[in-house]
Amino acid sequence: MFSTRRTLRIEWGDCDPAGIVFYPRYFAMFDHSTVLLIEQALGMRKHKLYEHYDFAGYPSLGSQARFSLPTRFGDEVEIASTITKVGRSSFSLQHLLTLDGALAVEGNETRCWVVRDASRPGGLRAQPMPDEVVARFSSTAA
Amino acid sequence: MFSTRRTLRIEWGDCDPAGIVFYPRYFAMFDHSTVLLIEQALGMRKHKLYEHYDFAGYPSLGSQARFSLPTRFGDEVEIASTITKVGRSSFSLQHLLTLDGALAVEGNETRCWVVRDASRPGGLRAQPMPDEVVARFSSTAA
Amino acid sequence: MFSTRRTLRIEWGDCDPAGIVFYPRYFAMFDHSTVLLIEQALGMRKHKLYEHYDFAGYPSLGSQARFSLPTRFGDEVEIASTITKVGRSSFSLQHLLTLDGALAVEGNETRCWVVRDASRPGGLRAQPMPDEVVARFSSTAA
Amino acid sequence: MFSTRRTLRIEWGDCDPAGIVFYPRYFAMFDHSTVLLIEQALGMRKHKLYEHYDFAGYPSLGSQARFSLPTRFGDEVEIASTITKVGRSSFSLQHLLTLDGALAVEGNETRCWVVRDASRPGGLRAQPMPDEVVARFSSTAA
Repeated sequence: MFSTRRTLRIEWGDCDPAGIVFYPRYFAMFDHSTVLLIEQALGMRKHKLYEHYDFAGYPSLGSQARFSLPTRFGDEVEIASTITKVGRSSFSLQHLLTLDGALAVEGNETRCWVVRDASRPGGLRAQPMPDEVVARFSSTAA
Repeated sequence: MFSTRRTLRIEWGDCDPAGIVFYPRYFAMFDHSTVLLIEQALGMRKHKLYEHYDFAGYPSLGSQARFSLPTRFGDEVEIASTITKVGRSSFSLQHLLTLDGALAVEGNETRCWVVRDASRPGGLRAQPMPDEVVARFSSTAA
Repeated sequence: MFSTRRTLRIEWGDCDPAGIVFYPRYFAMFDHSTVLLIEQALGMRKHKLYEHYDFAGYPSLGSQARFSLPTRFGDEVEIASTITKVGRSSFSLQHLLTLDGALAVEGNETRCWVVRDASRPGGLRAQPMPDEVVARFSSTAA
Repeated sequence: MFSTRRTLRIEWGDCDPAGIVFYPRYFAMFDHSTVLLIEQALGMRKHKLYEHYDFAGYPSLGSQARFSLPTRFGDEVEIASTITKVGRSSFSLQHLLTLDGALAVEGNETRCWVVRDASRPGGLRAQPMPDEVVARFSSTAA
């Protein structure tokens, strides 16, 4: 399955009075990793995606994280992100955030491929993913 | 000029490793105070505003804050917000954030009344505010 | 088990370009609900807790959320939070975020009661919760 | 004076329902730029600074920004940060955030060099900056 990785630096504003990352910030980091993975997998940025595939995004259906080690202001961490499952209209990802090679946070999430639902104002509905998207998400290239 | 006030509680996630509010969070608090003031002044919520006035929002032209006293997790603070100036297509606000009556942060900002600019994709341009809006912003009722 | 609820308003800054809450923000809302529940259950604020129980906090071991309905800027939502399990040194909570009575987000998390671990700089270790804490978390009073 | 620059990518979670950066996020970006500038100027990371200089940080006394052009999800922006003034116990910085060479946001802030004030619990007081710090902030090396 498609995978990617990036390094980032824990910022002062990511951390709480205990001196460690305020955990909702990990979900924001994972969200950006998902954006980057998808743009690398599909070869185009999210705003181009909207035009190219005539879809309405890939909102999260569910997200979870387990916190094994705290990370702190100034830490350089790595996030390795992998697509773990490709369904008909949904796909899952895993994010492993490590500090000096040790697992600090494991995140897992499922996203849905949606289009506008003309029957309800502002409505969205799941839509099967284009074959090309399925193929790219399933590829091992990184 | 129109004014309003609200109390709020400093949250754990608002604070940084020094144990005090991470100052960009004050701007987020002031932004929400501005939203609340405008909806009280005009008697309708922001999403109704868009329909009623056929406009595109009131983005910030500039914002500033002076930090006199730190505030911490668990503090109950008050934000008093006042419109300080009403121009043709812009208006200014002041936010005074106090802790037990002592001034902790003073914020000042200027907002612009904008409409979509059909000549550029995604463009916005300043537009004179409707007389009714000027009148309500200038009123002393709270 | 102990439970509590609060209402809050979705802020402009909570929402993303799709016009719905940026989901990491739900975890921040749940975190604050947990803080409020614990201070109500134990009858004191978090900073007093540190003095009273000589402990070092209740960091999250894991957190998850399922997103059923989007919520938007201006929505008034309710978060009902309940302690679902009380262990020896950990406890679990559920947060149900509803909009007009319909479930929008279900969150579940597990927290650990920790003390400073003098054997490592900055170290923390799990500690059995005081009997009084176990009793209050297990009570049905709200 | 000392200056530095970095590029960064506007994230989905930085943007609001108008599709542009929620402006408090610019202050968070500027805060991180200040952290990076100071660590480059002084040749050590913030947590080392605390040990080396026996001080308690450089909190903001005031901050302001002017917003000239909106930036959007996916934009690559550059932030050029410069120390503009070095006083006895305070210093000022300017941050210019540009998109494709056009100025989008200009930020200015003043920071104070503080030490713990033993006369008040949790208290901080301004302290003259060490000569070495003044010299490095005043250098033109980057």
